[in-house]
Amino acid sequence: MNIHNILVAGNYQEQFQVQLPAKITQSFCFKQIDKITEEDLSWADVYVGFKPCPGFHFADIKWVHSFNAGVNNFLEIDGWKEHDIFLTRTVCSFGLRISEYCLSYVLRDLQYHHYFEGKQTEKKWAPKTPQLVKDQTIVIFGTGEIGQEVAKVFSSFGATVYGVSQSGKQKEYFQKVTETSSASTLVAQADWIISTLPLTNETSKLFDRAFFSNLNGAAFINVGRGLTVDEQALIEALNSQKVRYAVLDVLETEPLPETSELWERDDIVITPHISAVTELNEAIACFLDTLKRIENNEVLPNRVDFLKGY
Amino acid sequence: MNIHNILVAGNYQEQFQVQLPAKITQSFCFKQIDKITEEDLSWADVYVGFKPCPGFHFADIKWVHSFNAGVNNFLEIDGWKEHDIFLTRTVCSFGLRISEYCLSYVLRDLQYHHYFEGKQTEKKWAPKTPQLVKDQTIVIFGTGEIGQEVAKVFSSFGATVYGVSQSGKQKEYFQKVTETSSASTLVAQADWIISTLPLTNETSKLFDRAFFSNLNGAAFINVGRGLTVDEQALIEALNSQKVRYAVLDVLETEPLPETSELWERDDIVITPHISAVTELNEAIACFLDTLKRIENNEVLPNRVDFLKGY
Repeated sequence: MNIHNILVAGNYQEQFQVQLPAKITQSFCFKQIDKITEEDLSWADVYVGFKPCPGFHFADIKWVHSFNAGVNNFLEIDGWKEHDIFLTRTVCSFGLRISEYCLSYVLRDLQYHHYFEGKQTEKKWAPKTPQLVKDQTIVIFGTGEIGQEVAKVFSSFGATVYGVSQSGKQKEYFQKVTETSSASTLVAQADWIISTLPLTNETSKLFDRAFFSNLNGAAFINVGRGLTVDEQALIEALNSQKVRYAVLDVLETEPLPETSELWERDDIVITPHISAVTELNEAIACFLDTLKRIENNEVLPNRVDFLKGY
Repeated sequence: MNIHNILVAGNYQEQFQVQLPAKITQSFCFKQIDKITEEDLSWADVYVGFKPCPGFHFADIKWVHSFNAGVNNFLEIDGWKEHDIFLTRTVCSFGLRISEYCLSYVLRDLQYHHYFEGKQTEKKWAPKTPQLVKDQTIVIFGTGEIGQEVAKVFSSFGATVYGVSQSGKQKEYFQKVTETSSASTLVAQADWIISTLPLTNETSKLFDRAFFSNLNGAAFINVGRGLTVDEQALIEALNSQKVRYAVLDVLETEPLPETSELWERDDIVITPHISAVTELNEAIACFLDTLKRIENNEVLPNRVDFLKGY
């Protein structure tokens, strides 16, 4: 692939400048996303950004790099396969970030942070033995790069870690991986369900009434995409204690509207899509790494498979 | 060592029964600690319990096993060396328990749990990028079994982990181990200080005004012993922001009196000595394992060195 002209959606000159290798041969154009013109698109071989600009179309673009890990907004554009266009995404430290996020909320629960905070307020010395990660059964939806990193961390503490994926293909760090269609017995045993799933036709509203009815008081952590969950079904599952506790970093509507009843529940933790927030510097480093790999015809571990949608 | 009679301080018959191997040859006597008589002590070859009974003396006892990891209450008794008596302690899962405790509070801070809880109450979507463990510098006081397990966990996440010990001997999982006397430059760089120190003559009030004056806003976690800390000096260090935040699982006086000002501070987390609470079943398993090792003349990794005091 011959790459000459790189169009970056965002005024990130300074941040790029710091990281650009000395002997880079390409030309860059930095533009605020809503200022990108037809002419800019025609000029570019590569489009880099968090999402497509208004009126985005491929023109002569051969490669698009998403600063996010989730690429559903790019996939809404037609013609990737017909025009044989590369789509790559930032994956660098997402696995690590998401693992630490998940582990922090699992440990918060097992170590009874909330209980001890309450006792401190009451000035009461009231011991209670924390639980250990090794005694937990954790079912992770999505066994890709991110799911696998999460599995690696929890299995390093001795937890029983199962995976659920479309193919059911066995992967390292999972005691067993099952297909989505036959996950119901697995999730019935779970202390924790962690979803790292992207949004695709198959995963949209996957976590619905039928899914939650199989659980037996598991906690549910969503670090994938909000639209994989039927939030009304989740609320009912919390009410009936099929789900004990939910940690939601992603939601059907983001930002979550002030009117949502999710904010007010004691058994839900809401965080504002921060578990794998893109640190711009990391995103740039990942883009430059991908550029080098493309120039050297190397394997691209972060290239999106259009059949799978991630 | 010939062991016939084992005196257990506590009515733990049932709990022992479950775990006793089929062909055990010893006799057991279970007594509530304050009901143990002179006669019981004379009968016993071995004393097992959380602490010495009132009026404890060695009589014909050859071996004492502490259900706790900390043995300072046993060491207050004179004559261990003259009578050549074994003292062993429960170490089994302490390292793991303490690691998960420490990690839970480090992640709570790096993932801004408190901040996001506040925002949830206000129903505000206010992103803030969590920090990663790999960017933290952690100085662990005590490089024994427990300190090393804590170091292993944090270094597995890529943190920079230094150790401080009396000998300064290098140990696995620490980038560097320094002697206590030359720790001041090390602690000046620390984001986190974690103490796993036992209480000995050398560690009593080790964390005093002079120590805290070397810090630059580190957080301080104490999972060792409360009497290693001058609590008044810690409060002053929090006031002057030499210490940013403290997590205290052990205190000068336990239970912490209701009148203590420590309860009320936002920058202190108090937990009631639960980071390495002895699960009785584990303590029993550890005792039985030690018994087997003694009968087979094997090495005892949990035997107390009276010179060191742990």
